[in-house]
Amino acid sequence: MKGPIIREISITPIAIVDPPLLNAAGLHAPYALRTIVEVITDDNIRGISEIPGNIETEIALEKAKEVIIGKDPFQLNQIKDAIENHFDKETTAQRGDAPWDQRKIVHVFSALEVACLDIIGKIQGRPVVDLLGGKRRDRVPFAAYLFYKYEGAGGHLGFKTDSNTSGWDSARQAEAVTPEGIVRQAIAMVKAFGFKSIKLKGGAFEPQQEVDAMKALFAHFGKDVPLRHDPNAIWELETAIAYGRKMEGILEYFEDPVRGQPNMSKVRKALKMPLATNMCTTSFEDIPQSIAIGSEDIILSDHHFWGGLRSSMELAKVCETFGRKLSMHSNSHLGISLAAMVHLGAALPEIPYALDTHYPWQSDEVILGGRIKFEEGAVSVPTEPGLGVEIDREALARLHQNYIACGLTKRDDEVEMQKVNPEWKFKAVRW
Amino acid sequence: MKGPIIREISITPIAIVDPPLLNAAGLHAPYALRTIVEVITDDNIRGISEIPGNIETEIALEKAKEVIIGKDPFQLNQIKDAIENHFDKETTAQRGDAPWDQRKIVHVFSALEVACLDIIGKIQGRPVVDLLGGKRRDRVPFAAYLFYKYEGAGGHLGFKTDSNTSGWDSARQAEAVTPEGIVRQAIAMVKAFGFKSIKLKGGAFEPQQEVDAMKALFAHFGKDVPLRHDPNAIWELETAIAYGRKMEGILEYFEDPVRGQPNMSKVRKALKMPLATNMCTTSFEDIPQSIAIGSEDIILSDHHFWGGLRSSMELAKVCETFGRKLSMHSNSHLGISLAAMVHLGAALPEIPYALDTHYPWQSDEVILGGRIKFEEGAVSVPTEPGLGVEIDREALARLHQNYIACGLTKRDDEVEMQKVNPEWKFKAVRW
Repeated sequence: MKGPIIREISITPIAIVDPPLLNAAGLHAPYALRTIVEVITDDNIRGISEIPGNIETEIALEKAKEVIIGKDPFQLNQIKDAIENHFDKETTAQRGDAPWDQRKIVHVFSALEVACLDIIGKIQGRPVVDLLGGKRRDRVPFAAYLFYKYEGAGGHLGFKTDSNTSGWDSARQAEAVTPEGIVRQAIAMVKAFGFKSIKLKGGAFEPQQEVDAMKALFAHFGKDVPLRHDPNAIWELETAIAYGRKMEGILEYFEDPVRGQPNMSKVRKALKMPLATNMCTTSFEDIPQSIAIGSEDIILSDHHFWGGLRSSMELAKVCETFGRKLSMHSNSHLGISLAAMVHLGAALPEIPYALDTHYPWQSDEVILGGRIKFEEGAVSVPTEPGLGVEIDREALARLHQNYIACGLTKRDDEVEMQKVNPEWKFKAVRW
Repeated sequence: MKGPIIREISITPIAIVDPPLLNAAGLHAPYALRTIVEVITDDNIRGISEIPGNIETEIALEKAKEVIIGKDPFQLNQIKDAIENHFDKETTAQRGDAPWDQRKIVHVFSALEVACLDIIGKIQGRPVVDLLGGKRRDRVPFAAYLFYKYEGAGGHLGFKTDSNTSGWDSARQAEAVTPEGIVRQAIAMVKAFGFKSIKLKGGAFEPQQEVDAMKALFAHFGKDVPLRHDPNAIWELETAIAYGRKMEGILEYFEDPVRGQPNMSKVRKALKMPLATNMCTTSFEDIPQSIAIGSEDIILSDHHFWGGLRSSMELAKVCETFGRKLSMHSNSHLGISLAAMVHLGAALPEIPYALDTHYPWQSDEVILGGRIKFEEGAVSVPTEPGLGVEIDREALARLHQNYIACGLTKRDDEVEMQKVNPEWKFKAVRW
């Protein structure tokens, strides 16, 4: 029995308009970088995927071609082993200092795995969710993801931003710094997308200001809209406990208040609310200590960071086995990543917490048919074969030109913040 | 997109000739029971599987039809959830006292999952291993599985036993009680099948006699043939440590010397060799305590007991994450189970220890083409779509008649032993 063979892998870096969002690491640049990967078989079946953009990941993807071209896209175990064996141990283990924790080889395999699953689904006439055991729900719920931000919608190259969501476009461009500004942002986003949970990316202002924002959200939305706050690990242990106490009874969960598993474990013991993380437990290698010391209640997985969709299903089993809950982290992304997240979300045993997505903050799109619609805060699971989304080649070319023109090759929120405030320095722990 | 629909589930209990093998629970009956499950779609694609036979499992399978018929066989997550929701909690959690630890619902889902994977593979033109991420090896290694036994080949209903393995058939019928008898059995089995590792099922005689058998095997085969001993948890803690010490340097691993995770953990700390289990850590629910107290080094999984092939891949990830090794347990079985074990074995990240199989002890077969061949102790991974084995309907009918005629409805090694020795009683811990 002869299977299809991977004939070509196409790697296209793109830059997408991103608003000036604040976070503990600094400020989002006017463009966020993504990499679009296409895996093409000898019989011209094309699988696609999208991963965080970074010049080093693209170089590693280029190098991965040496061992992946010629392989059967069904042989995902062989593809994984080949990649791991092709890079030296130092590279495979490499992790960045930044909160988003770049790990090249994990991104490389995630990109290839999702594209191969798209191919397999297309060959079989089955949506990707069916390759993960099949769907457990028709719609996958997401949360409103609020950001402190400066005024503006991002972009500086003359490309017009657009939005299919009435009322949200102006709110998306507005400044949001005060508690009132955050509540206004939340009202507009919830109205436009129908989200039923709300998260604030914190770590941008001093703790009391952020606690006041959460209290203002609670005062407006009440206890039926679960709230989350994420200081991105920039708080001291004592700060996290003191200000965390002020949010007990208000938060559904408290995300990464402090840095590292041991500190997270201490905060978890001190506070009466669940702790979530995408910063202290971010790989299978981190799981044993997480279990030993109890560093969190909820792991915010991300298939781009955990080695793909099948690996994320394995993570779900690990979580189920050890009494952890699983939800999902995101970065600025477009519809290919969103589709993959939705297929995964549809297969997971449970979704106890609505998933994170930056999607409302983006206005570009790289898929045919334009931006994916949210209904009541949820996205319908595609039923077409594969991921169910296809590349808009005109949009891809334009966004790739954006990439070349904007001059960015990797994310650096510190440099961007220094354009606004030259004195600003990234601090792993600030308050 | 309309998928296939499960139209019919056929459940056929069979009885296969089994020799009078001794173990801690007593004596194998002249027939071992298996259940052959066939899942048939509306377009007449037929998926098959084989599980341990037990009247209660068959009743549960019959009841599972109420929620499974009409489902798409690709929707394995839905099938699992439907089964778990269809039986009350007491039933789903039910575990027997016997070492083989019957758990009805796990067997039910395992039977349906393997049969559905057979269907999916047939529809896709892909071997089942490709539904587990694809094969990492072309041949899957097994170990010689020695038993203390009385003379005889099993069977009493006039059905002729046969064997395709020259030299083994007479050794298979011979008594093996002394160290010399065990070595003779090992020589014949290794010669016939080419096994490169050897396991003795112990717990049948007092500890020194079994240690002497292991020493005799070591004296004959030398250090290049890894040896294992399995007292089936029938030893006291002190016995296991004292007699375990005598086998340090001889055993590749020591399997279930004592009962329960806390005792296993103590033996593991006391001895300088790896401990394996299929008795103290036998489900995902057992994993947290296993990790917390370190009850074993090696988990001997069994897809019939761990919820199927995909679940076994998840177990492999759990093992990899926590530094456990994974190998495979078996019961008396035929070629459908063996094929499923081989597909799983081909997909596993590693096979650090050759897998267990009772297959050489059986002489019946239920698949077309007769009994599966071993070469150098290994089985080649089927490359045909699905499991790559099909039911021999004449053999199935004959083995089902065997089932009706033999009068057994579940395994009971104690009753069988009492036919030889009326005073004999099962003891969970004997020495």
